[in-house]
Amino acid sequence: MIIAFDGTGYFGWQRQKSELTIQGIIEDAIAKMTCAPVTLHGAGRTDTGVHAEGMVANFTTDSSISITGFQHGLNSILPDSVRIMSVVEADRNFHARFSAKGKEYEYHFAAMEILSPLERLYVVRVAPAIDLKAMRECLALLAGEHDFSSFEATGSRDLSVTGGRGAIRTISHAELVELTGKPGRFKVVLAGDGFLRHMVRNIVGTLFEVGKGRISPTDFQEIMTAKNRARAGATAPANGLLLKKVFY
Amino acid sequence: MIIAFDGTGYFGWQRQKSELTIQGIIEDAIAKMTCAPVTLHGAGRTDTGVHAEGMVANFTTDSSISITGFQHGLNSILPDSVRIMSVVEADRNFHARFSAKGKEYEYHFAAMEILSPLERLYVVRVAPAIDLKAMRECLALLAGEHDFSSFEATGSRDLSVTGGRGAIRTISHAELVELTGKPGRFKVVLAGDGFLRHMVRNIVGTLFEVGKGRISPTDFQEIMTAKNRARAGATAPANGLLLKKVFY
Repeated sequence: MIIAFDGTGYFGWQRQKSELTIQGIIEDAIAKMTCAPVTLHGAGRTDTGVHAEGMVANFTTDSSISITGFQHGLNSILPDSVRIMSVVEADRNFHARFSAKGKEYEYHFAAMEILSPLERLYVVRVAPAIDLKAMRECLALLAGEHDFSSFEATGSRDLSVTGGRGAIRTISHAELVELTGKPGRFKVVLAGDGFLRHMVRNIVGTLFEVGKGRISPTDFQEIMTAKNRARAGATAPANGLLLKKVFY
Repeated sequence: MIIAFDGTGYFGWQRQKSELTIQGIIEDAIAKMTCAPVTLHGAGRTDTGVHAEGMVANFTTDSSISITGFQHGLNSILPDSVRIMSVVEADRNFHARFSAKGKEYEYHFAAMEILSPLERLYVVRVAPAIDLKAMRECLALLAGEHDFSSFEATGSRDLSVTGGRGAIRTISHAELVELTGKPGRFKVVLAGDGFLRHMVRNIVGTLFEVGKGRISPTDFQEIMTAKNRARAGATAPANGLLLKKVFY
């Protein structure tokens, strides 16, 4: 299933005992349709408040409900903040997380004095005077294979998830795009074979410091090389982040 | 003041005793700054759930706070669902409602099977098979001076507001625009010298029936001429509607 959701008001993807989560409500909706408990495997976790257009998840069932029956049924049960955008029957050995080859994230921000209330849930405001050229220089430094320890949430390494490759990841695409027809609105696009916990938000938080002139591209290179989270900028707010696609 | 707001969760513009309204929270914020009760005159009321990018409102104060002081102060007090986008000192005889020469509204809809959760608060979904050509024919019929009784909320006429001109209004601009770079997303733009209660939503609700082929442009013309609300389509949902601009 490809799933889109507005992360506002959810405690992230992963099921939790007493909090509203995306995985939790979809599992509950599937269980309601099949009258059997189910485990939904997501391509990855998303933090509280992070959005998705292209989350991928799979589950196994012996129900006789058709796949389009599942899509329409789930969309009728789920709130409109979560939509099953498409459904296919997968190979028996498909696993949304373990089969994933990579992901693409977008981080949306607006460089303006006052952010429109109609954008506030999905866009983060920064001051209008922002050095886009310096930010783009830093994004170019991110491309390729690197140890991204400096941008990893402290104390968060989970070897069962990272598969023992430590903090080494390959970024295939790193770009700052000005949105057409929307002056002052930008997105940072990051695609790669995997992302550490908070990695995109920590990169963007550091890029914002670069944009303000507090960190130079040379500093940015040093921060990457230092492999030390303490050197990088603050974690950018969750609501600017969007899981755009998962690659298989 | 030019005010933008996300109408989700508000009981419309007009102050009410026990409900959260836009006028109410702005008046409370001004009163907090000036330590005096205040009346905020808005260019018009908006219904529960309707959004605005360009609501205009004015108030009179003998406070010594500067206008930019008011703007920054109010934006720091108000929730980020309401923003004071700009402020100027007006003539003493300016009145946001009585001085208004006209208004422009946009109604946003998406013709697609599944609406993205990230658009749902501001866009209304309709079925993908929609007859845009027929809708555009009807919009052309709306332009000019007409009696819009057929699109007026029943039992809602308030002569103190309409100024005794009944249901006659002049529509200066009526257009259906496909949003660039957003396939399947459209807006109906309506500008005119004034709008009756629910008029835009009733027009759009009727246009949706035209789009589905249930009402022809000829029927639409007859509905207009009938001056009878019962002939027109249902009121379109509030969340697709945006007060774009007020003209002076």
